Amino acid sequence: MNRYENMTREELSKELSEICEKLGEYGALGMSLDLTRGKPGNDQLDISEGMLDVVSSSEDCVCENGVDCRNYGILDGIPEAKRLFSELLGIPKRNLIVEGNSSLNIMFDTVARAMLFGVYGGKKPWGQQGEIKFLCPSPGYDRHFAICEAMGIKMIPVDMTPDGPDMDTVEKLVSTDSSIKGIWCVPKFSNPEGYTYSDETVERFARLEPAADDFRIFWDNAYAVHEIYDEKVQLLDIFKTCKKYSTEDRVFYFASTSKISFPGSGVAIMAASENNIIQIKPILSAQTIGYDKINQMRHVKFFKDAEGVHAHMKRHADIIRPRFEAVISAFRRELSGIAQWTEPKGGYFVNLTVPDGCAKRVFRLAADAGVTLTKAGASFPYGNDPRDRHLRIAPTYPSFEDLVQAVDILCLCVKAAVLEKTIASK
Amino acid sequence: MNRYENMTREELSKELSEICEKLGEYGALGMSLDLTRGKPGNDQLDISEGMLDVVSSSEDCVCENGVDCRNYGILDGIPEAKRLFSELLGIPKRNLIVEGNSSLNIMFDTVARAMLFGVYGGKKPWGQQGEIKFLCPSPGYDRHFAICEAMGIKMIPVDMTPDGPDMDTVEKLVSTDSSIKGIWCVPKFSNPEGYTYSDETVERFARLEPAADDFRIFWDNAYAVHEIYDEKVQLLDIFKTCKKYSTEDRVFYFASTSKISFPGSGVAIMAASENNIIQIKPILSAQTIGYDKINQMRHVKFFKDAEGVHAHMKRHADIIRPRFEAVISAFRRELSGIAQWTEPKGGYFVNLTVPDGCAKRVFRLAADAGVTLTKAGASFPYGNDPRDRHLRIAPTYPSFEDLVQAVDILCLCVKAAVLEKTIASK
Repeated sequence: MNRYENMTREELSKELSEICEKLGEYGALGMSLDLTRGKPGNDQLDISEGMLDVVSSSEDCVCENGVDCRNYGILDGIPEAKRLFSELLGIPKRNLIVEGNSSLNIMFDTVARAMLFGVYGGKKPWGQQGEIKFLCPSPGYDRHFAICEAMGIKMIPVDMTPDGPDMDTVEKLVSTDSSIKGIWCVPKFSNPEGYTYSDETVERFARLEPAADDFRIFWDNAYAVHEIYDEKVQLLDIFKTCKKYSTEDRVFYFASTSKISFPGSGVAIMAASENNIIQIKPILSAQTIGYDKINQMRHVKFFKDAEGVHAHMKRHADIIRPRFEAVISAFRRELSGIAQWTEPKGGYFVNLTVPDGCAKRVFRLAADAGVTLTKAGASFPYGNDPRDRHLRIAPTYPSFEDLVQAVDILCLCVKAAVLEKTIASK
Repeated sequence: MNRYENMTREELSKELSEICEKLGEYGALGMSLDLTRGKPGNDQLDISEGMLDVVSSSEDCVCENGVDCRNYGILDGIPEAKRLFSELLGIPKRNLIVEGNSSLNIMFDTVARAMLFGVYGGKKPWGQQGEIKFLCPSPGYDRHFAICEAMGIKMIPVDMTPDGPDMDTVEKLVSTDSSIKGIWCVPKFSNPEGYTYSDETVERFARLEPAADDFRIFWDNAYAVHEIYDEKVQLLDIFKTCKKYSTEDRVFYFASTSKISFPGSGVAIMAASENNIIQIKPILSAQTIGYDKINQMRHVKFFKDAEGVHAHMKRHADIIRPRFEAVISAFRRELSGIAQWTEPKGGYFVNLTVPDGCAKRVFRLAADAGVTLTKAGASFPYGNDPRDRHLRIAPTYPSFEDLVQAVDILCLCVKAAVLEKTIASK
């Protein structure tokens, strides 16, 4: 049901023609507005400027254990960086590997390693087991799905709910199909809805009884400290929860400072149980002598401790909160009774759900009017949103004025698409 | 033949007992001298100190194409970094991918990618072809061999000569065995001998007629600009040479600034033909959004151009030349007629060849006297030097005084081992 359905065909046509006229005017302006990627804005990057030269002399490069960050040595992260992430994420240092600039890279490598070498507890590399599958809570993060697609891992979509993935389905599939080797999770401020998994969902992940002995939860805690309001959103600790059931070997945990310091030049970590770390490290040591320790040191000297990161995240929040609110207030004003949207308390996206069959049409209308949206379907495996209704909105990168303009146009496009559909069904 | 062989058993025993006494005295000192790894010394790292804060403001982070280095974007390197490496290595920009801090990491990933996805021109991933093999010119770089060992790729040693690998053997094996998929090469100042491939060797690589349609030369030009004397050592351009025979698709080329700027925080590149680049990039873009562009910018701003790199390398040379000369003059003074050694014009190592069956013994004697050597056999596949005679000496990292002391002890150990062997054979 949408608010247009009580209108007559004539009223609908009149409304549509007015909207099309406005969109035509926008189109004629030849604007180029972009709501596609979850990139921090320049004003957000500026608040980390001090990090650029916080390590400026040779003396600044000496670790607390005496190792010179400039030289070779230390595979798994300098001690002070381990301590920073340990405190920030509540993960013991021995379970952390502090790596390079990209958690996506670590995730790809983790899948590649499982394909080539297998995982702790598995009998064979994933790549030697015929067809294997991943569960993909959807909508989800397109780059997770791109890893599976590149590797030839079959993706099975699972519905997302405000409490996390539909765990009834996850439990049923994982417990019966031993070719299911993994599931992608963004457990806090999920991409794109901004949902945070409920305690029960995390418990159910810990209690899963997978048919595969080499099943892994890819726990991408990308937005671990990315609240946009003062209120802290709590996510149950996956490792502690798993420990209760002795299932901690099933978790591969990822995080990074990409949206804390610099997206291209942050520091990324992976965390895992002792058994997993013991399996991973020798392979990692064939892959590299070590990661960029000077950049790890920059992060430590700039943030100092978890409190420093939290204070920094408040500055980010102050910049992006008005952007999220501008999107949501426009949606409330223009789209009530026509579409649904999420109202996240953190993260980088708003998910807009339009009536079935309208998302691709909105994408095209917006493109014609000068607004680039993330491709409809992008947040589903193989780019296939079966009901063609989800659009991912990224409010952080455009200037505030561009954002407001783009969202106004987007709202017109949604109205136009829904009007077209309603007229067609009359 | 060694100079001890004309001595009587009594003379030999007396000489050995004097040397053992000296070694015992050293051992009692409990020293800890290290000749193991090819790490730059601290004085070398200091000459790059200015790089630490050469990018210190947000404005410094803007690329010439307007992209902000701090944010996401650009998979294959900022334009100015591509230009720098293109000029430095004589490789067209379109053939370059500028990546992260480690060329070893790129090499591992390149092998992993070939295992999982295959290479351009191949019919199947390497990992789906049963047993595959690499040729390993030996002695060679232990970390190359560690990649093969981790991946389960069978290694076939091929003798090294002062002109490069024994090309008769390479040609015979590569042209008859289609399970040979690759060969590891350090073509300039080879690790550990410091040999540079002759023009004829490079030509013969370009003219190889591999049985495998997915054969690759892993051309690790780690010491491309690492002369220690003013005289430039010329290596024939592998890509240009291959172009003559239309064989440029067989080359994967690697280099880095690990021993130009900072070993842990340099910039690494890979280069390949257009066909290879087209096959690699989509997989790379599933692996990462991009590498650390701010660090690429630091390198560009610090070095400016190839001339800047060459001037910087002269400063490195001035620091390490006396160290190489100290090693070589000690060897000339103490080991003439007992052992052989290389006298490289660049790179990071001297290879010491002791009489057959003596290398492990020297390693143990040195350890007892307080000098850690790279494990005997380390520069051979599976750590197995069949004649047990090669020792890799890394003169750059210890202080000059420590180096002189360590090499004195090493010479005593070589003498002792050779004396023991000679006595045993009398």
